[in-house]
Parts: sequence; C-alpha cells; structure tokens
Amino acid sequence: MAVELYNQGGHIIVSFSDLVEGDEGVQSNQFLVVIDNHAAIIDPGGDLTYTRLHMALSKYINVKDLDYIFASHQDPDIVASINRWLTGTNCKLVCPEVWSRFIPHFSRVGKTTSRIISIPDRGMDVPLGRHHLKAIPAHFLHSEGNFQFYDPISKILFSGDMGANLGPGDYDKPVKSLDEIMPYMEGFHKRYMNGNKVCRYWVKMVRTLDVQWIVPQHGRSFIGKKIVAEFLNWVEQLECGVDLMTQDDYRVS
Amino acid sequence: MAVELYNQGGHIIVSFSDLVEGDEGVQSNQFLVVIDNHAAIIDPGGDLTYTRLHMALSKYINVKDLDYIFASHQDPDIVASINRWLTGTNCKLVCPEVWSRFIPHFSRVGKTTSRIISIPDRGMDVPLGRHHLKAIPAHFLHSEGNFQFYDPISKILFSGDMGANLGPGDYDKPVKSLDEIMPYMEGFHKRYMNGNKVCRYWVKMVRTLDVQWIVPQHGRSFIGKKIVAEFLNWVEQLECGVDLMTQDDYRVS
Repeated sequence: MAVELYNQGGHIIVSFSDLVEGDEGVQSNQFLVVIDNHAAIIDPGGDLTYTRLHMALSKYINVKDLDYIFASHQDPDIVASINRWLTGTNCKLVCPEVWSRFIPHFSRVGKTTSRIISIPDRGMDVPLGRHHLKAIPAHFLHSEGNFQFYDPISKILFSGDMGANLGPGDYDKPVKSLDEIMPYMEGFHKRYMNGNKVCRYWVKMVRTLDVQWIVPQHGRSFIGKKIVAEFLNWVEQLECGVDLMTQDDYRVS
Repeated sequence: MAVELYNQGGHIIVSFSDLVEGDEGVQSNQFLVVIDNHAAIIDPGGDLTYTRLHMALSKYINVKDLDYIFASHQDPDIVASINRWLTGTNCKLVCPEVWSRFIPHFSRVGKTTSRIISIPDRGMDVPLGRHHLKAIPAHFLHSEGNFQFYDPISKILFSGDMGANLGPGDYDKPVKSLDEIMPYMEGFHKRYMNGNKVCRYWVKMVRTLDVQWIVPQHGRSFIGKKIVAEFLNWVEQLECGVDLMTQDDYRVS
C-alpha cells in the first residue's frame, strides 16, 4: 500500500501505511520525500518496519544515498530503527534539539557522531534538492520537543501524532468526515496531547500556512481545505492531557 | 561505580551511574533490585548501556533468570535495549499501558508476545520475592504515561526524570543542598516537565509516602527527610512546560 501523495517534476512524495510487522505494535505511516534525486524519510519507525521499508524504498531511490531521516520526536514507533539506517545509509538524522542527547541511546557508541542535525525549538528549514521542508514547532503535541514537517510546494503537512486515528483499516483512504474517525481519534488525543493551551497555539500557527493535506503518522489523512478547517476547529476546542488530570490520578493505590 | 543503596536480609538495591558508553548520550543511572533471589532492573537504558550493564549485573545475579525490566516510560535512554534483554533473559517487561503498543517497535516481530505487563494509569504493586515494588503515577512528568517506582521496605523512590540533574560528575554522591545542583536541574525541569498543575498533584501524593531517598534516573540522589522535603517544596512551585509556552513558541519561521 505505497501511495503517491504527490508527483510533479521530480518531486515525489510516497506514503507507506502497511509495513508494521505483526499485530503488537501500533499501525503507523512512513513517508518518503524525493526532490531532484535528494531523498528524506519522515518518521521511519522501529524494528517492526525497518526491513519492509528498506525494500519498499528501493523501488524509488538508491537507499544507500538517502540524505535524511527526519524524526518528529523520540518515540520508538518514530525512530527506534535509527541505528540500522545510520549503518546502512549515509543519511543524517534531523531531530529536535531537545532529544539530540537522548536519541543516541538507540544506537551503538559513535554511530551518531557528526550525523545529527538538531532542530532548535523555534523550527528550521531543511534544504532538499531545489526546495526545502519546513520543520514547524508542535511541542507538547504530544512530545515535549516535537516538530511537524511542511512541504510548501505540495502543501502537505506531515502532522505526526496530531490527527492520529487508530482505526481498523482503509489507511490509504482520506477521511471523509471527522465523525467517521472520531471513535479512533478522540481518546488518543485526550490522553496523549498535553493541554488545550498548546492546541490553540498550534491551530493559530497552522492557519497561517496554506495546508491542502494533513497527513498524520497513524491512520487516515485529511485532504482538502474543508476537512482541514474542520479538523483545526476540533483541535482548537480540545480539552486534553493535563487539563483532564485531577488529584485522583495522582495517588498511591 | 556500582553503589549499594540498600542491603539487608537478601534485599539488595544497586545503582549504576557510569555505564553510558561514549559522550553523545546523556548520563543515566540504572538500578538493580533483588529480593529473595528475584531480580528487577529499573530503566536499563539503550544500546549505549546494554553490554556494560549486563556485565555489571552478572556480579549480583544470574542474568538469564532476571524476573523483570521496569520501564518508567518509552524513551530511548530508558528502554531502547529491550529487544536484547528479551532475547538474552526470561524477563517480563513492566511498562505503562499507555505505551504498551508503542514499545514493541523497539524489538523484532513476536519478541514481546506474552512478555509485557501493562501498568494501568492508576498504578499497581508488582510482587518481587516476599515484598513488592509500587508503581506510582507520575504522568506528564515528563512522559504522558509515566511511573515511578517505590520500595516500601528501603523507602527509596526511584523518581525517573523527576529530580534529574545533569551535572558533570559525582553521581555517587548524594546532593547536599539544592543550590549545588540547581544549575543542572532547573532548565531541564522547566523544559521537559509539563506543567505546575501536575507537579502539585505529584508532590501531594509523594508526601503521603514515607520517602527516605529520592533517586532520579540522571545525576545525583536526594537522601534524608530534610532534602527530600526541600526538593518537594521546589517542585510544588515550579512553573514549567506548557505553563511557559506562548504563541511566540508556535510560529512558522
């Protein structure tokens, strides 16, 4: 289930959504972005996806020449396979500065030397071929140091865990209405996202971008201005995380 | 630098603080708890500690017979080596329920089958020999699903990232005053802990326990009622994480 999200003039974006082996790990999507023969993977995942993703990529690129692995944050389903990518390719890892001394614990000693590009908290542009990808801040949504990636040409926002919907299938079919995925989206966001205050800041920022397509790391995507706007409205009013905690959640049982 | 924190009647607690290989990963402490020949490791770390920790443990236990790995949360410096522990020993992994579908991404397919014990959000007691360790909630401090471990016999609280101080050394020497570690503790807590509200809930909960010793996963420990009380007072008033975020932290640069 490799789906081309964009393909124009040597600028190709492919989504993979069925690569997680077994049924114990959560379903997750991985993304390949190629511009002028320069290539980046966004959130490649861990050991449960490494082999299949490597094989899937080889249809599009010479994997050894991969330029970048982008890691939105430090979770195992995001980047636990980094040791193998650093070994098997010449890539650099682009990850939040906040996690750049934690991520080396994924790999053997010396493996990350001179191969980590740290994204400062405010975000940055990462050049890829004649264009660039924008790393935009999404801290505490969910991880403390967390970035999303925006492609100003395709107008796709790779939103990481924001918009994650953990439904049973149809991962290649964009969401038609929020209602159909709400049972798979709401609980996750209420528990893993950190608070309404940062949801509102994030929504306000994303509204300044021309976003045609929100593609999360789990589940189905949101295509078109209408559903993107509906999704942003939903996030804006979401009470979650610390908002919902009470003293009762912090007691010795 | 293996330090015995407790040793009485077959109940032994050992702290290891110099096992992280190289200088790219953050310093971290690992803990061995043995009661009546049953053994648990708390937060064993990733690939940067695996080999040295395995060797260090073999002085105390038959590593193959390890009963449990406790993971306070999902970070690489906590438990990225889980695939190797599950392969090399018969242990079960005790981890937050919130992360039990994410942690399998650290390991090969099938490796975690029937070997994960999920801690529900409210916490639980885990039997070890004639006693038990208490998993107590510390959600959003920093991870969304996060537990600390309390030993009611030794009265040691393994506090994970809470109290982490990233100073240059003396990891085996307990802190004498908060002032001496504040430069290595305050910045980390302000950026990685999620908000004052949950800090206050956590402090209130911990005050109901008889804690003689707070031992964090990074840096030096806090021994004795006086400094424990001082530390709790400091946490109680701490503004951090989402408290300190503004719209300026969420903008497209």
